[in-house]
Amino acid sequence: MSSFWNHNISISIFGESHGPAIGIVIDNLPPGEYIDLEKLRQFMARRTPKKDGTTTLRSEQDLPQIMSGLLNDRTTGVPLCAFIQNTDTHSKDYSNLSRLPRPGHADYTGAMRYRGFNDVRGGGHFSGRLTAPLVFAGAVCGQILERRGIYTGAHILSIHDIKDDAFSRTKVTKEDILEVREKDFPVRSDTQGEKMREDIIKARLGQESLGGIVECVAINVPAGVGSPMFDGLENTIASLIFGIPAVKGLEFGAGFQVAEMVGSQDNDPFYIDENGQVKTKTNNHGGILGGISSGMPITLNVAIKPTASIAKPQETVDFRAKTNETLQIQGRHDPCIVPRAVPCVEAAVNLALLSHMMEYPNF
Amino acid sequence: MSSFWNHNISISIFGESHGPAIGIVIDNLPPGEYIDLEKLRQFMARRTPKKDGTTTLRSEQDLPQIMSGLLNDRTTGVPLCAFIQNTDTHSKDYSNLSRLPRPGHADYTGAMRYRGFNDVRGGGHFSGRLTAPLVFAGAVCGQILERRGIYTGAHILSIHDIKDDAFSRTKVTKEDILEVREKDFPVRSDTQGEKMREDIIKARLGQESLGGIVECVAINVPAGVGSPMFDGLENTIASLIFGIPAVKGLEFGAGFQVAEMVGSQDNDPFYIDENGQVKTKTNNHGGILGGISSGMPITLNVAIKPTASIAKPQETVDFRAKTNETLQIQGRHDPCIVPRAVPCVEAAVNLALLSHMMEYPNF
Amino acid sequence: MSSFWNHNISISIFGESHGPAIGIVIDNLPPGEYIDLEKLRQFMARRTPKKDGTTTLRSEQDLPQIMSGLLNDRTTGVPLCAFIQNTDTHSKDYSNLSRLPRPGHADYTGAMRYRGFNDVRGGGHFSGRLTAPLVFAGAVCGQILERRGIYTGAHILSIHDIKDDAFSRTKVTKEDILEVREKDFPVRSDTQGEKMREDIIKARLGQESLGGIVECVAINVPAGVGSPMFDGLENTIASLIFGIPAVKGLEFGAGFQVAEMVGSQDNDPFYIDENGQVKTKTNNHGGILGGISSGMPITLNVAIKPTASIAKPQETVDFRAKTNETLQIQGRHDPCIVPRAVPCVEAAVNLALLSHMMEYPNF
Amino acid sequence: MSSFWNHNISISIFGESHGPAIGIVIDNLPPGEYIDLEKLRQFMARRTPKKDGTTTLRSEQDLPQIMSGLLNDRTTGVPLCAFIQNTDTHSKDYSNLSRLPRPGHADYTGAMRYRGFNDVRGGGHFSGRLTAPLVFAGAVCGQILERRGIYTGAHILSIHDIKDDAFSRTKVTKEDILEVREKDFPVRSDTQGEKMREDIIKARLGQESLGGIVECVAINVPAGVGSPMFDGLENTIASLIFGIPAVKGLEFGAGFQVAEMVGSQDNDPFYIDENGQVKTKTNNHGGILGGISSGMPITLNVAIKPTASIAKPQETVDFRAKTNETLQIQGRHDPCIVPRAVPCVEAAVNLALLSHMMEYPNF
Repeated sequence: MSSFWNHNISISIFGESHGPAIGIVIDNLPPGEYIDLEKLRQFMARRTPKKDGTTTLRSEQDLPQIMSGLLNDRTTGVPLCAFIQNTDTHSKDYSNLSRLPRPGHADYTGAMRYRGFNDVRGGGHFSGRLTAPLVFAGAVCGQILERRGIYTGAHILSIHDIKDDAFSRTKVTKEDILEVREKDFPVRSDTQGEKMREDIIKARLGQESLGGIVECVAINVPAGVGSPMFDGLENTIASLIFGIPAVKGLEFGAGFQVAEMVGSQDNDPFYIDENGQVKTKTNNHGGILGGISSGMPITLNVAIKPTASIAKPQETVDFRAKTNETLQIQGRHDPCIVPRAVPCVEAAVNLALLSHMMEYPNF
Repeated sequence: MSSFWNHNISISIFGESHGPAIGIVIDNLPPGEYIDLEKLRQFMARRTPKKDGTTTLRSEQDLPQIMSGLLNDRTTGVPLCAFIQNTDTHSKDYSNLSRLPRPGHADYTGAMRYRGFNDVRGGGHFSGRLTAPLVFAGAVCGQILERRGIYTGAHILSIHDIKDDAFSRTKVTKEDILEVREKDFPVRSDTQGEKMREDIIKARLGQESLGGIVECVAINVPAGVGSPMFDGLENTIASLIFGIPAVKGLEFGAGFQVAEMVGSQDNDPFYIDENGQVKTKTNNHGGILGGISSGMPITLNVAIKPTASIAKPQETVDFRAKTNETLQIQGRHDPCIVPRAVPCVEAAVNLALLSHMMEYPNF
Repeated sequence: MSSFWNHNISISIFGESHGPAIGIVIDNLPPGEYIDLEKLRQFMARRTPKKDGTTTLRSEQDLPQIMSGLLNDRTTGVPLCAFIQNTDTHSKDYSNLSRLPRPGHADYTGAMRYRGFNDVRGGGHFSGRLTAPLVFAGAVCGQILERRGIYTGAHILSIHDIKDDAFSRTKVTKEDILEVREKDFPVRSDTQGEKMREDIIKARLGQESLGGIVECVAINVPAGVGSPMFDGLENTIASLIFGIPAVKGLEFGAGFQVAEMVGSQDNDPFYIDENGQVKTKTNNHGGILGGISSGMPITLNVAIKPTASIAKPQETVDFRAKTNETLQIQGRHDPCIVPRAVPCVEAAVNLALLSHMMEYPNF
Repeated sequence: MSSFWNHNISISIFGESHGPAIGIVIDNLPPGEYIDLEKLRQFMARRTPKKDGTTTLRSEQDLPQIMSGLLNDRTTGVPLCAFIQNTDTHSKDYSNLSRLPRPGHADYTGAMRYRGFNDVRGGGHFSGRLTAPLVFAGAVCGQILERRGIYTGAHILSIHDIKDDAFSRTKVTKEDILEVREKDFPVRSDTQGEKMREDIIKARLGQESLGGIVECVAINVPAGVGSPMFDGLENTIASLIFGIPAVKGLEFGAGFQVAEMVGSQDNDPFYIDENGQVKTKTNNHGGILGGISSGMPITLNVAIKPTASIAKPQETVDFRAKTNETLQIQGRHDPCIVPRAVPCVEAAVNLALLSHMMEYPNF
């Protein structure tokens, strides 16, 4: 398997960047769930390129056509299939790629894996465009979760060396989440956001690209969701997050900072809050202990590498002729995909959470 | 599912810390593989507690009895079951735990998940002891991989604020791997190791515990192993690594550092080496691009939190009575589990790699 | 899950009878396999309705559009998605079905399962039309198998009380298979076939429908394919065959006849044939022992019930009002689906076999 | 995979007939379920050999030791592992088997599959003895189902040409089920049972063995359990039933008889019963329509072949030397395994039903 993901909910993603269409099949959604298609479209619009110079010029409408599983805007319970046409493709931009693999891309590894038969145009099945179906799934799952009070929010935590304000790990509100979600450039501090945008434009002009970190949080997940060992919330989230191209790291709660802590710092003391709920005073555990939710906000950070496609000349090889070569990549590319990765991370978390919630009593 | 992991190879781990036994069933190992039981025992010994004050005093022989799947020291191809008796258990140490959850442990979340029916003695199924079966599986897989020239090595990269020398990401030899593997305290620089030991003993005396980072590398994995999206090497490794208790972060190659890079720094230039092999000059991609191996060393870092069990009094709650309480944990605990996590990480990587190699042509 | 099937090859089928489209995603096909699209179309044509009065008058072109996974008529190795538009739908024919479940159909059970939210028009996701994507998958897998010399053939073994000549279980040739495959009405004896057609037309005129048995055989599967217990060839084939609507029974080799045999009759004696191959003199085991192929032809029979939709008035209920009612089904229906089930059974066997062959050494 | 079965509940079976032990791990059982160990032992005793000449003389105590997952006789929710020691093994009886495969056994196919490395003593992992762990799982699941009013019962429907009285498909009571369950020889008509026993003893004396059919029924399964396509009740039951050695056929409801029916005969008319429940007047559909339960009894028949091990000399081959040979099987064997298959079939159905019930609302 590669593009099938099986849990209580299963998904199957198909398509190549320059083929006729891409899409997704989602199986085992609960029946009778109302899906607001306008809200769905808005969620998906968050990953489409902007016209402000920070993203690719490729115009992606990405309007999904729903082929099955939805009737009168409600899930039927059988597989939901969504379909996104590929229209604005410029295949000639990629004509020499099958010979000269782009550094940082899967051109070489894909050719080794598929013995040269995979479609390399636009990255084929490895293209970042394939995150659109994932975002579709996450948007559907998000609406079902929000109906039960569970909200997921993500934002740019940093780009290059510029930081946004992190969410509080102990107190995040629905309003905090919705505020950043509505922004064109998903940061909590617009001042910092403006610096990031300038840095991105500067990178683009300098034929460069930038990396960054996405922070994601989910609130109101009840305690007791998940399982130990290999079916924990962390494992499930990780299995989806590492399916997003360009992700190189994932941490929960205090993450890599725990390495420098002592036990009494890292351990989050329990207390009973004013409503009689069990809470923790700090949340270094990121809302997950032993793979199972504690009722505290679930928090994670995801490291996104700089876009591999840059305009600068780069060293590569002709891996069939076994010669060293120089490559100058043409085509339209995002100088920084971190802003567009924000809804992808949120989508992955939504999908993982809904899938685990399916086995929660009386969900 | 919780403790079943299904891939080309599947494992099923069972047992509770203070029950009669723990163990594992491994399905779909290739038949006819010779397993050196003495070497297996040595691998497992790497995670057993030491007598030097850096680990728990609980004596764990952890000698696995093989119940099926091995005949004349060769795999038969049908499920291999190994069994480890629990002997040195002191159940009274945990008598008040079901009422007062230990901060940083899964006592509270486990009780919520299993509605209070799970075995809490010694952490039950959540105990770090349950990594012994995983290490067993990793030791078996490692022997099969090494027969094909693939070596996996891990060491302590840091404990608290003390760092060991990292592996080179571009040039790691089998000798580098074996050198650290043979040490009692798995560090590359013994000077730094000595500082770490002193820091651990100091923490123990101060009723504290320490966290750290484990670095792991795998060499000679051929290019073309893995798949895009959800069945990439990163996803598979992550799905196992997050099954190791106390892991809070995972990064591949340059990991979180990519967030601060520009594209021309992060992209690893390809070149043809003196043997006509495709290589990259740097290895920020950690040997994996698009979920598929590039032929470069696979490298990853894993963040391990400080042992949750510390002797210092801690704030907790009685979650049934809804009262705030103070807890003082008795019992024998590791002041730092990072050294014992080293073979666990190595085992997880071995298992993930062998499982992916099963679909590699002519493996 | 319902419509996801996961093995070495995975499939995901989507669509409802009267929705915009139905289709399938197939994951993990070997890369580089040439697919003859004209031959594929011919395979699929075998399940489309005929104009001779033996099938429904609904016109189904069922021309699949391939959306991904195929480039220059070769599999790329990433998910292959095929898409079949629904065009000739008459939804008004089914207007009262959500109130009055049709006997023998899944109207009632589907409503219970999906709490009334599933699409009931034309049977929705339960429609026999959803076998078209399965046949597509089977046609693709069949071409890959035939390239390795493995041929699968099926025919009508009986309809009502009229029998066709069974395949020899010990000696079936490629020619035997191709001969019946090319016929419009897939029987080995055309004389018997003519009687069946007359019986079907008589049933239709009498507002009735007929059941029957499909026999399927696969030749040249090497010995050693499959696994014991739950991953045997029989289990895998069964998991697909029972996904074909109207199937009520499945038997391998001598099947239910073994119940009346004594051991020396049922046991198939081994011998060495003139080419030094291990064979059995009889083939009551149907080419499978312990879930694993023996090298003998794989043979199975599948019982197909009479089409549930008949024109005769039938007793049913209004399951919401809790009243007894009479139902007269309108619409266009097959008086006998056995002929159209023939390529479905063949497709299921192809898919199961190719999936198992994926782990056969040097496949 | 071979011996892992994954659904909402997962099982993993391990062991070889003459190895140290066999056993099972069951994952995802609901927590807090009381398991009556004496009742469990009684269920398992139904498949142990009897001393009346109808079964093997091998003495199998088969007392399972529970290693995890049960505390104070209640399921903890984490993997339940049971363990059965192999004690009364006579390995010398099988000394020449690796050279001369027994007709009707998996000796030859197993050797091809595992390249000669599998343990052939007593059939190894292919032995009927490996049904003991399955029966253990079925006994556990049965207790959980019965607590919700769901009862499963099986009996010998026929042996050779002697028939027992079938259950009524429309009206089966809990008492009908318990009556036959308590018998040493599980038939409904003791007169017919006596004839069967005589026939079995006659077969044994004549160095022969006999086959037969097991009928199984499950009552009080609510309507709406299961899913269409590949996750239907029929598929799930089939995936387990074909894991029982010697099974060659499976049919639901009227099964193969539907092939000779016309639609108005086969279709089961719906009606509202005296309690306002939706019922069907006949039950040719065997309680399952479209993969989903209808609320009617679930009924199935399973064809069991004669024991492959018979004392008569048989033709076989030396498949390495490529010579024709004669084999005379020594050892202790059941002249008819149909009586011992009865609890195996019941167990498989219990496991499939409980696994599907896990996703039924408010189970």
